[in-house]
Amino acid sequence: MKYSREKLSEEKVFKDPVHRYIHVRDRAIWDLISTKEFQRLRRVKQLGTTYLTFHGAEHSRLNHSLGVYEIVRRIVDDVFEGRSEWNQEERLLSLCAALLHDLGHGPFSHSFEKVFDLDHEEFTREIILGSTEVNAVLRRVAPDFPKKVSDVIAKTYKDKLVVSLISSQIDADRMDYLQRDAYFTGVSYGHFDMERIMRVMRPREDQVVIKQSGMHAVEDYIMSRYQMYWQVYFHPVSRSAEVILTKILHRAKHLYARGYTFKQEPVHFRSLFDGNVTVEDYLKLDEAVILYYFQVWEAEEDVILRDLCLRFMNRKLFKYVEFHPSNDQMNKLMELNRLFKKAGIDPEYYLVVDSSSDLPYDFYRPGEEEERLPIHLLKNNGEIRELSRESEIVDAISGKRRTDHKLYFPADLLRDESTKKNVKRQIRELLELS
Amino acid sequence: MKYSREKLSEEKVFKDPVHRYIHVRDRAIWDLISTKEFQRLRRVKQLGTTYLTFHGAEHSRLNHSLGVYEIVRRIVDDVFEGRSEWNQEERLLSLCAALLHDLGHGPFSHSFEKVFDLDHEEFTREIILGSTEVNAVLRRVAPDFPKKVSDVIAKTYKDKLVVSLISSQIDADRMDYLQRDAYFTGVSYGHFDMERIMRVMRPREDQVVIKQSGMHAVEDYIMSRYQMYWQVYFHPVSRSAEVILTKILHRAKHLYARGYTFKQEPVHFRSLFDGNVTVEDYLKLDEAVILYYFQVWEAEEDVILRDLCLRFMNRKLFKYVEFHPSNDQMNKLMELNRLFKKAGIDPEYYLVVDSSSDLPYDFYRPGEEEERLPIHLLKNNGEIRELSRESEIVDAISGKRRTDHKLYFPADLLRDESTKKNVKRQIRELLELS
Amino acid sequence: MKYSREKLSEEKVFKDPVHRYIHVRDRAIWDLISTKEFQRLRRVKQLGTTYLTFHGAEHSRLNHSLGVYEIVRRIVDDVFEGRSEWNQEERLLSLCAALLHDLGHGPFSHSFEKVFDLDHEEFTREIILGSTEVNAVLRRVAPDFPKKVSDVIAKTYKDKLVVSLISSQIDADRMDYLQRDAYFTGVSYGHFDMERIMRVMRPREDQVVIKQSGMHAVEDYIMSRYQMYWQVYFHPVSRSAEVILTKILHRAKHLYARGYTFKQEPVHFRSLFDGNVTVEDYLKLDEAVILYYFQVWEAEEDVILRDLCLRFMNRKLFKYVEFHPSNDQMNKLMELNRLFKKAGIDPEYYLVVDSSSDLPYDFYRPGEEEERLPIHLLKNNGEIRELSRESEIVDAISGKRRTDHKLYFPADLLRDESTKKNVKRQIRELLELS
Amino acid sequence: MKYSREKLSEEKVFKDPVHRYIHVRDRAIWDLISTKEFQRLRRVKQLGTTYLTFHGAEHSRLNHSLGVYEIVRRIVDDVFEGRSEWNQEERLLSLCAALLHDLGHGPFSHSFEKVFDLDHEEFTREIILGSTEVNAVLRRVAPDFPKKVSDVIAKTYKDKLVVSLISSQIDADRMDYLQRDAYFTGVSYGHFDMERIMRVMRPREDQVVIKQSGMHAVEDYIMSRYQMYWQVYFHPVSRSAEVILTKILHRAKHLYARGYTFKQEPVHFRSLFDGNVTVEDYLKLDEAVILYYFQVWEAEEDVILRDLCLRFMNRKLFKYVEFHPSNDQMNKLMELNRLFKKAGIDPEYYLVVDSSSDLPYDFYRPGEEEERLPIHLLKNNGEIRELSRESEIVDAISGKRRTDHKLYFPADLLRDESTKKNVKRQIRELLELS
Repeated sequence: MKYSREKLSEEKVFKDPVHRYIHVRDRAIWDLISTKEFQRLRRVKQLGTTYLTFHGAEHSRLNHSLGVYEIVRRIVDDVFEGRSEWNQEERLLSLCAALLHDLGHGPFSHSFEKVFDLDHEEFTREIILGSTEVNAVLRRVAPDFPKKVSDVIAKTYKDKLVVSLISSQIDADRMDYLQRDAYFTGVSYGHFDMERIMRVMRPREDQVVIKQSGMHAVEDYIMSRYQMYWQVYFHPVSRSAEVILTKILHRAKHLYARGYTFKQEPVHFRSLFDGNVTVEDYLKLDEAVILYYFQVWEAEEDVILRDLCLRFMNRKLFKYVEFHPSNDQMNKLMELNRLFKKAGIDPEYYLVVDSSSDLPYDFYRPGEEEERLPIHLLKNNGEIRELSRESEIVDAISGKRRTDHKLYFPADLLRDESTKKNVKRQIRELLELS
Repeated sequence: MKYSREKLSEEKVFKDPVHRYIHVRDRAIWDLISTKEFQRLRRVKQLGTTYLTFHGAEHSRLNHSLGVYEIVRRIVDDVFEGRSEWNQEERLLSLCAALLHDLGHGPFSHSFEKVFDLDHEEFTREIILGSTEVNAVLRRVAPDFPKKVSDVIAKTYKDKLVVSLISSQIDADRMDYLQRDAYFTGVSYGHFDMERIMRVMRPREDQVVIKQSGMHAVEDYIMSRYQMYWQVYFHPVSRSAEVILTKILHRAKHLYARGYTFKQEPVHFRSLFDGNVTVEDYLKLDEAVILYYFQVWEAEEDVILRDLCLRFMNRKLFKYVEFHPSNDQMNKLMELNRLFKKAGIDPEYYLVVDSSSDLPYDFYRPGEEEERLPIHLLKNNGEIRELSRESEIVDAISGKRRTDHKLYFPADLLRDESTKKNVKRQIRELLELS
Repeated sequence: MKYSREKLSEEKVFKDPVHRYIHVRDRAIWDLISTKEFQRLRRVKQLGTTYLTFHGAEHSRLNHSLGVYEIVRRIVDDVFEGRSEWNQEERLLSLCAALLHDLGHGPFSHSFEKVFDLDHEEFTREIILGSTEVNAVLRRVAPDFPKKVSDVIAKTYKDKLVVSLISSQIDADRMDYLQRDAYFTGVSYGHFDMERIMRVMRPREDQVVIKQSGMHAVEDYIMSRYQMYWQVYFHPVSRSAEVILTKILHRAKHLYARGYTFKQEPVHFRSLFDGNVTVEDYLKLDEAVILYYFQVWEAEEDVILRDLCLRFMNRKLFKYVEFHPSNDQMNKLMELNRLFKKAGIDPEYYLVVDSSSDLPYDFYRPGEEEERLPIHLLKNNGEIRELSRESEIVDAISGKRRTDHKLYFPADLLRDESTKKNVKRQIRELLELS
Repeated sequence: MKYSREKLSEEKVFKDPVHRYIHVRDRAIWDLISTKEFQRLRRVKQLGTTYLTFHGAEHSRLNHSLGVYEIVRRIVDDVFEGRSEWNQEERLLSLCAALLHDLGHGPFSHSFEKVFDLDHEEFTREIILGSTEVNAVLRRVAPDFPKKVSDVIAKTYKDKLVVSLISSQIDADRMDYLQRDAYFTGVSYGHFDMERIMRVMRPREDQVVIKQSGMHAVEDYIMSRYQMYWQVYFHPVSRSAEVILTKILHRAKHLYARGYTFKQEPVHFRSLFDGNVTVEDYLKLDEAVILYYFQVWEAEEDVILRDLCLRFMNRKLFKYVEFHPSNDQMNKLMELNRLFKKAGIDPEYYLVVDSSSDLPYDFYRPGEEEERLPIHLLKNNGEIRELSRESEIVDAISGKRRTDHKLYFPADLLRDESTKKNVKRQIRELLELS
């Protein structure tokens, strides 16, 4: 039998707390799940540092990847199958792309990408196309199959309907992570009626559209997304941990560049520091490795690296105050910078502005930095209309970007009056710390 | 103000998916949570290798410890307070013991304890009594407070009522883990009406008793426990991972004893191998460290160590068949042992019998290996009766130990016919593999 | 197109809190739901008087009937379809029998059947076979179709597999009501993994069997059933309401027989009193009608009828004490009987023994009053084994009948000392009322 | 002991599916629940005709009333107690007002109020102040207590903080019904984090305010409310049933006025028809009584009354089309009116425009018809700000009234071509029925 059509002799199921069961019938999907590149995702947390705020958020990217796969499977098998606008030949491609879309995420992705100028999408592509177990499985389907999967994930695949299943403003990726992250954090946001949304999804030539009757469920989904961003993803305490993590990496990179001798050679980091990471190196990076180094670095000579690692590992985080980037505040920041130096606390590592920004929904604005695919409704008369033209609620929030700025610093050091008592007092006054 | 009575200026809450919120008012509790020994529990999974079977089971022991604390807090503050049988002076002690009862758990505890002959309870004691941040906080309460906390956890504390809150057949520990593990795995077992059970708990001189009206909720709890054991905790796939993990540790220890030169010196393991682990060494062991070594060992010279590590990290687990320890089966096992050697597959590492055994509930049987505290019901007339004398369901299963034996082996190696074709065929026939 | 194969142009869905959605594609099912006999089930509560104990239990039999239909639909369409042991020709028959199995239930069935010697199964049959809207729809499928549906419900249909879907110890009827009643009462019992049980159901010649791997889910189901019986269905407060209800009907019947003149002619009751109820009369009986009469009877001349109606409508229920039918207790009961008469409180209406009894599970015992179909497990090797031979838990409780007896009386009347002070005191002492 | 302070010897609990348990300690609350006026609420559905669309929505107003009581109890006992701004003397008053706020609701309130020009708030007041069991209990607390309770419900009580607990844009009434109606219908809207909102509520002189940190939970609540209105409360199918119900009452009233002789004298309706309903009459009206009459009227001589009753009882509802009140549409409506008459279908009863309209949230607009109490946030610095000035989402939807108009008619009659074939065809064309 052709491998692309091969079914398992008996369906396999994984118990999943969010979707109840993940169902696998296709041999190729089972084989992909069994690759080492996919299993590595068990060692990368879905929400990075969020577990330091919401202790339940310890779930991995493997967890989420299985969920996205299952959602696409249900849409394709339960809703699209048999509809003329859907090309059943794209089924396995859609499932593989869903399963593998996050394959290139590294440990604590966000900080790593920033500090080492990496791009997880680029790594996803390289893992799929390179000499890996994943690639071997995909090639068994067809020689050009890895390229197709990679194109779907990169949004360059010609069949935009397939792309939109995992990349749009209401795709399987978002639907899974909103629910999953809500489940593991335990917050009461993040709930919406996914079953209803799936049931009213309809395939169209270049995207998935939503039947008009599901509009309210979509509104609910958009509000959930908004709440999850501000209540969970941008939580200031997680961002504090993220700030410290970023500064650890900066410091280690800086020390390495300066020729500093680490007690234990940071083998796993070398190519990162040198800026020439291969896929092979990259796949060895997972959060266990990172946390191992952070523990080792708790005993480093360098005071800053040591302190930051102790903070991260033992959750002694930075505190924060609101920071609005006005002239006044910028001047205050410069003054604080000066005072931190005077107090012997390096502001490069200990005085950090962090901004978060989100757009809950937007219609298509050509030419803009990120050209978002808007959500389209399918009316009873067959007409297709962009969501915000039908929904007053969505219209009201469309395109409204919200931004939040915070200034992070180690309040404990500023309170320790054993040295530099006066300057620390000045700093505390400027920061309005009690 | 006395530290033992000191309250936070504002209550702190942690969002918890199982108990909704964890509430902290006591300064001492807050300080304990902030110690590095407690934070280390974030890097030890609650369910060891179970996440390889139930992908949601990635939650940590910190997660569970906060849960046990919260349950005891609710019992003590919402149910016991004001009752004459309850000594309010024991409140903080109960909370601290609940929070810290698992402090000494190492990474993948079970396997580590077995291979290196460790005892997590002993380490809990040493961390509480030793020179640690936890000890410093507890000493601020009173000089003899660390000893008291340690005694409660060791079940030797004089006030057996306090002990029974966290160590009995219906304690806060079990009530938390059953619900929490059910939540994170997503199984539908593990649910029972904890709120009801808590509301009918009554303090008595030497233990917590349950009002008769709560008997059915307790029956439900016992059945949940039974199901969780057989459906989750003893799941044969997790046990397969546990078998491999144990064999990795055995192999590494064996190689070290034999003077083998590891590519990277296994610093963290040295005192374990030498059998002289200090608390300080022990606290450096967490699952990130272990997984780091396993990854490094994937590239070791030793074929067995390398293979086992690759299996564990990439979830290429052993398969299993039922194994009933009859004479026939024992003979078969010896025959298999012989054939494995002949096939060049070391049976010491690749042919493993694993048994699991559980007693869902038992009344007190003095002199038995583990003297279990039975559950007592408080009847309306004030009489106290042991549960199995009142509940037919519990009576029916009381003292019925159930045991399950399985034989684990690497089916993939046995199917690989590039070498030793005939002997492998013989093995497969004996194991009745298709 | 043949009516039996006719599909709706678009699937209809009902939002259901237990199964999320009820899906209807078949024209015949849709037409049955729209009949007046089926809609009448909206006016009959699923749990009779239980809403007086659990205020959430206000759901109707229509609610439950849709649920049973949906479970059978999922089993047949998602699990059985395509299996050789399943005859797809029986699909619509199974669905109709599931939907209509409770059609003959009257208001507060239990009491009505007892007092007026009715049999709801007989009425179900008559409604299906008689001159009704339901019959008209079924006849459109085939002339012998009403008879077939009726036979399935009566368990006399030749294809026992179809019968077992709605009548066995693990049928769609029980699976729906356990979950539904748990949901509406809000109790934490009644949960089990129905999705898993459905997935492991397999059609066999004469019954549905359960794959061995689902045994634990079945154990959990049996325990849920046990808990629901004792916690909800046999709750002593609901039984108190049931006792009063029964006595109201007795009294009204007695008065009618005696030639009593009711202020308003009890038209709806006449044929009941006369013992010659037709289907047409019967279909006019619903709980709105009954409650209407009870309200009217609150103003009747007869003191007993008036008092009992006021009690039922305003939830002034009888109290109860345990009653074990020993010689001593029987003597006490006779003494109480005597004293009640002396106190001017008619014991026939005000001193009532009520017993409840349940058998959580039983294997087949030929010749016994109710020949129960046991649950059979399908082992991996194809062998079929009765559940209690495989499950220790089930074995432990198999065939263990539990019975509970209570004695009901109006405590308020006994405390009212305006008359018969002494004899009431004696009664209270005998009943050990404080 | 003073009755107002009297506690039950043991706390009573009701199992509640929404709030888990309803707790009663106060003797007065227990006594109020036991009154016949309160028990009558079991026979009035919380959502009127909605059960004909969402079959789970069969819950009663008693259900909801207990829920509102429990929410106020938790706010007052768990959050407000001990705060200086809260007057503990108002506790029992708040609880009683919460419990009794819906006491005057009649069967299918909305339609009854419209047709018979009644006001349920007026009846609530009369029941509390009149010669009732409820009044007797309240008077035991204090002679002026009934008046106080009535004033709180009428929003005229001097302590506006107490009033705002049950009458504001975020009161216990709304918080209960949104969650409860979502639970019983089974929709996935209606969820928000009530526990969080309660925890951040603070008493202020004239209203409850919400701490800034709870703003997102409040946003979520407002969105839930919006969705519940459009998905559940204004569902066009329920409105169809409401339309028919209203027309039944109109018809019966019209017939009575005309001197029509009913087969059975409509005793319960007489004072309604005459426009002189007393409280005593009113309390006899419940949904059982109404449904009883509707069944009896199914056999009336009058064709219209009979037909409408059959429709309501057997759920043969009217269909609908969108209707926008433009000039064109108004002309079309008049044309339809003319054609209906020509077809012999009385448009007064069979051609009905129904409009629904909602304002999801509004700030205070003095002078407007309904002066809504806006939601106020309490900022960290003590400042109080109206919600829409802080929340972008709420600001976006503030004051945006949405209205929906539909035109209802009996599609079945229009399709029946046995008479007036041509004019019915014309009507169908105008209505664009296929």
